[in-house]
Amino acid sequence: MNCIIGQSGGPTSVINSSLAGIIDAAIENGFDNIYGSLNGIEGIINNKIVKIDKDKYTNEAIADGLCRRPSSILGSCRYKLPEDLNDEIYNLIFKKLKELEITSFIYIGGNDSMDTVMKLNNYMSLNDIKGINIVGVPKTIDNDLCHMDHSPGFSSAAKYLIGTLKTIRADVDIYDLKSVTLVEIMGRNAGWLAASSLAANTSSSQEVVNLLYLGEHSKSKEDLIKEINTSFLKENNLIIAVSEGFMDSQKYFESNNDESFDKGFKHKRLAGIGQRLADYVNQELGVKTRAIELNIVQRSNHVISSVDSKEAYLLGQKALKLSIDNTNLIPIVKREESKVYEIYIDHVEPSEIANKEKLIPREWLTDNITLQKKISDYVLPLVKGEVTQEYVDGIIQFVDLKDFSERI
Amino acid sequence: MNCIIGQSGGPTSVINSSLAGIIDAAIENGFDNIYGSLNGIEGIINNKIVKIDKDKYTNEAIADGLCRRPSSILGSCRYKLPEDLNDEIYNLIFKKLKELEITSFIYIGGNDSMDTVMKLNNYMSLNDIKGINIVGVPKTIDNDLCHMDHSPGFSSAAKYLIGTLKTIRADVDIYDLKSVTLVEIMGRNAGWLAASSLAANTSSSQEVVNLLYLGEHSKSKEDLIKEINTSFLKENNLIIAVSEGFMDSQKYFESNNDESFDKGFKHKRLAGIGQRLADYVNQELGVKTRAIELNIVQRSNHVISSVDSKEAYLLGQKALKLSIDNTNLIPIVKREESKVYEIYIDHVEPSEIANKEKLIPREWLTDNITLQKKISDYVLPLVKGEVTQEYVDGIIQFVDLKDFSERI
Repeated sequence: MNCIIGQSGGPTSVINSSLAGIIDAAIENGFDNIYGSLNGIEGIINNKIVKIDKDKYTNEAIADGLCRRPSSILGSCRYKLPEDLNDEIYNLIFKKLKELEITSFIYIGGNDSMDTVMKLNNYMSLNDIKGINIVGVPKTIDNDLCHMDHSPGFSSAAKYLIGTLKTIRADVDIYDLKSVTLVEIMGRNAGWLAASSLAANTSSSQEVVNLLYLGEHSKSKEDLIKEINTSFLKENNLIIAVSEGFMDSQKYFESNNDESFDKGFKHKRLAGIGQRLADYVNQELGVKTRAIELNIVQRSNHVISSVDSKEAYLLGQKALKLSIDNTNLIPIVKREESKVYEIYIDHVEPSEIANKEKLIPREWLTDNITLQKKISDYVLPLVKGEVTQEYVDGIIQFVDLKDFSERI
Repeated sequence: MNCIIGQSGGPTSVINSSLAGIIDAAIENGFDNIYGSLNGIEGIINNKIVKIDKDKYTNEAIADGLCRRPSSILGSCRYKLPEDLNDEIYNLIFKKLKELEITSFIYIGGNDSMDTVMKLNNYMSLNDIKGINIVGVPKTIDNDLCHMDHSPGFSSAAKYLIGTLKTIRADVDIYDLKSVTLVEIMGRNAGWLAASSLAANTSSSQEVVNLLYLGEHSKSKEDLIKEINTSFLKENNLIIAVSEGFMDSQKYFESNNDESFDKGFKHKRLAGIGQRLADYVNQELGVKTRAIELNIVQRSNHVISSVDSKEAYLLGQKALKLSIDNTNLIPIVKREESKVYEIYIDHVEPSEIANKEKLIPREWLTDNITLQKKISDYVLPLVKGEVTQEYVDGIIQFVDLKDFSERI
């Protein structure tokens, strides 16, 4: 048995924990060769493949290093497979998989990457290909995958965000004058990550985040100014968390020069709303404003939740097992309905996750007090525990792909 | 004996370590009352003063908490005292100091804050005021204070920066296409912090930072494009560290709408050069570009160098002792000329630091290889050791001013 693993879509801080889970399960289950496809599916297409050195991997405790190492170590892609299953590219991919005698192909990614998994499975059905099982491992900091209680990567991003907002609060409070700090947070159309910032308020004597704007909200620019003025009645230095997907109801804040950098899946580039809001608030209220775009540092960070890393690992391990069981089911995380946080792993068809999007439920959004309660109960169990990073002479150390693999 | 402490200027991650050093020394030397002036000198002027509860401070190990807590816990200001020493404000300040029977006034701040220290001392000389000693404790992430080997706050910012750049490298490498990531770094006119990013290259098999642009450099926009094109010959995903003080020789990148938010000391707001460079590179070369402004997160961060925290503490302790010794000398850090990193504490007159600026020496700037060697030898001993943060249920905890003080 040979397996090949790819990582696709935006990176997370625990995407390599899933990789470790897959590799460990593959070794445990006696796989002969374990390959990595560089830059997701593009590695198979362009013949950019590494072979894991199982001895080095085991002897040098690489799994531990992977669980500490943020961002897709095998690289990523935004490559969208053609809708037409007769396209030559499918032939090419399966020729390569056959050549490497692959029996399991595990693909770690978000809802776009599950489109790849789904199409490859559809191609196999259509052409009655047997002997290969292609299974996805879900991940995304956006937390917008359907059927999952939450997605690996989200919890660490939330942990980083909550800590960072507490530090930003310590910074913005230093001057005795009115100010508004807009913190722009990733998440695409889903406000899960931005909303998690409210959990920072539960562990502080002072409100850390005063206002929150999500893609799920419908607000006019006048509503914003009204809410900011109300908040100024009790606080001098306001922190506003804003999801990159937020847009006012009149689309006043829509940028004219948004460009899609992401040619594959045609997502609009969303960054910049924080700065546009900051400029508007400054213009309307004349107070000091500052926009902080947390940028890629929030998705690839050394601040890693132990719970998140463990769950990402488990999903990787489970995906490999599902592939051995001759299925193409995607393992997902479900939460037990118990007082103490506990999860179990279920599974769904690729089509249940591919290209679908889960937003914050409407009933959570009635007001910020409700949302803070709901999101805190939801997110606080996920950010528990810290993965200990390795420092040598004061500098953080990450495992290198070359430490345990070779290009073939 | 009573003392009062203020914090001023931009915050750092270890400015409260200096505060702990002062308070510990004050307790040790039998001071009766220890006060904190909120928002720097403005607290004395506007009567916003806290009294440290020595019992709580000691029993609840607040010093440890302060050494972990980023950003000025007493608040800050950008208040510039008038040049005219006959101004009524001086009278007001010394009336308040007399009312509180202050014998030591310790002021933690950068080159602007040392202007405050200098003027207050000048006022005392002019009016023959005795019995109060006003001493500064230097700090700044910009590392631009004269006579110091380095400034408290800089080392932790450099530690954060180096780690963050390694993480950004892990992130930008994931896609198999040409890209340029501009990372904008604080430091005002001085390139110390931005240059420290080159130290990330010494601990990695791959170059983390490919190009560096500082205020100390003189480059045309055509030079930039030439250097980027040369770098693309060996690397697909370029990371360029750019100091907020960088400007091209023709001032093409000068912003038209820079506004001074800092009314007190009339510093120009420098942020935005990263985005302007990113736009220019995208326009000239058509490659994907991204600007990351590390923003205030780089100056107030939970990533704290043990060396930095210890030195900041020592300077605070020493300042209090100098004030007891009836001097107004400012303690400074000097480095021993030894193979193993070692410092000693010297002292200078306030006028030696106030309003002066130390840039990177010309001879370090001949080329990036020289600069990388020089800056790495300089900065690597400073980033050693990690101050362990306290997490409760996965959320970082900071000490609160209310935990050990009360408003009077």
